[in-house]
Amino acid sequence: MKEAVRIIKIGGKVIDDQVKLNQFLSDFAEIEGPKILVHGGGKIASHVASKLGIETKMVDGRRITDPEMLDVVAMVYGGLVNKRIVAKLLALGVNALGLSGTDLNVIYSKKRNPNPTDFGLVGDIESVNGPVLIDLLAKGITPVLAPLTHDGNGQLLNTNADNIAGYVAMELATEAKLELDFCFDLEGVMNEGKLITQMNLLLYRHLKGVGVIKDGMIPKLDLGFQALKAGVKSVRVVGNEFVKEAQKGTRLIK
Amino acid sequence: MKEAVRIIKIGGKVIDDQVKLNQFLSDFAEIEGPKILVHGGGKIASHVASKLGIETKMVDGRRITDPEMLDVVAMVYGGLVNKRIVAKLLALGVNALGLSGTDLNVIYSKKRNPNPTDFGLVGDIESVNGPVLIDLLAKGITPVLAPLTHDGNGQLLNTNADNIAGYVAMELATEAKLELDFCFDLEGVMNEGKLITQMNLLLYRHLKGVGVIKDGMIPKLDLGFQALKAGVKSVRVVGNEFVKEAQKGTRLIK
Repeated sequence: MKEAVRIIKIGGKVIDDQVKLNQFLSDFAEIEGPKILVHGGGKIASHVASKLGIETKMVDGRRITDPEMLDVVAMVYGGLVNKRIVAKLLALGVNALGLSGTDLNVIYSKKRNPNPTDFGLVGDIESVNGPVLIDLLAKGITPVLAPLTHDGNGQLLNTNADNIAGYVAMELATEAKLELDFCFDLEGVMNEGKLITQMNLLLYRHLKGVGVIKDGMIPKLDLGFQALKAGVKSVRVVGNEFVKEAQKGTRLIK
Repeated sequence: MKEAVRIIKIGGKVIDDQVKLNQFLSDFAEIEGPKILVHGGGKIASHVASKLGIETKMVDGRRITDPEMLDVVAMVYGGLVNKRIVAKLLALGVNALGLSGTDLNVIYSKKRNPNPTDFGLVGDIESVNGPVLIDLLAKGITPVLAPLTHDGNGQLLNTNADNIAGYVAMELATEAKLELDFCFDLEGVMNEGKLITQMNLLLYRHLKGVGVIKDGMIPKLDLGFQALKAGVKSVRVVGNEFVKEAQKGTRLIK
């Protein structure tokens, strides 16, 4: 594929805020060329689970996906959020196709090893079906990926949306020039309220060492640097509202 | 498309029964040639709505789709049921792709006229995207259609699954030999406990007139005869468990 492919992960509170979501999708629709949108489920899944009386079980601050919670995740991520986004993108002139990793076998994963911690029905990505995605993109179709994968034996698995974006980018990097954006609520990676515009491994390790970079930002940046190493041309952590603006956010460099 | 295309609507309690659903999908997987599966949501949507504290509003014995119920329908039909079926079909070797009518603009509909009865966010099908479906089928892909459509302005609409099966069959009938099966819990159309193996318009009108055929069977058969007239080669009402057996059920004839 000759054109650059953009993989954009939308994250944070924007999924739960109709006005902000509409603005994001309108910006996304204006981005030209082949592109893939990856979304999570925001707080809606926890909200629905709580209303359904399903207890959210946590270990070490991370949610366990038991069978009931998996049903909620399939409903909210695969159904509500995915189809809402697709309907809005179509209205904006984007030929969108909502996909979970199970559709067309797009993403195959393996249930995470229950040792030392059993996170339940959570999938670690094993492979991404590059040819199918390239074929869709070549036809002008915009895949909208929900964070659900499958194990090949009929079992759906809850899968981190950052990982989906990262692994898809790495797989497609062998076929095209890939640009990966992790969008979220902040402007980028911050220190003392200031945006860090460029980040290399040395700076990352330093800021992680002193505790400035922590929690969910660590796996996101680990994955970002892994993607750079695997041939993804551009990796960025950026505010949802700046998705169209190439100069914004924190750019990862080698 | 040279090969006959089968459109199979799965319905009734089988959606709610994992054992029966697995058997159905296993039979479906064995059917050769291009095929499309259309599903409803069974009783799960009502169950989830009730657990979420959403009141089911009825008018003339029919459910009203208010915005809250639409969210449930999107979650249950578009997410839970659709993705479960797709994951199982993939495990059975079927290259399945879950679609709502909004994905790739497959089915465009119009919100039903609120006069005389306002059913809420319910869509009446306006058009089916034949070329997209034919293209998928030609690639060996099996679309799995959830009963959700969209109005082109970003609004999802709840849409009867029988209608989706019927309209898709009629649209594709201009391109291929079409066989349409409405599967459900009974063996076929019954009278006094006996299966009616063949039904033409005269017999249908007679049995409707004397009250043997009633309720939900009326729109199903109206649609079936409409499909026959529109060029669909074979229309059948048949038990879910007999989907593989060509001689079973009630066959509609001109």
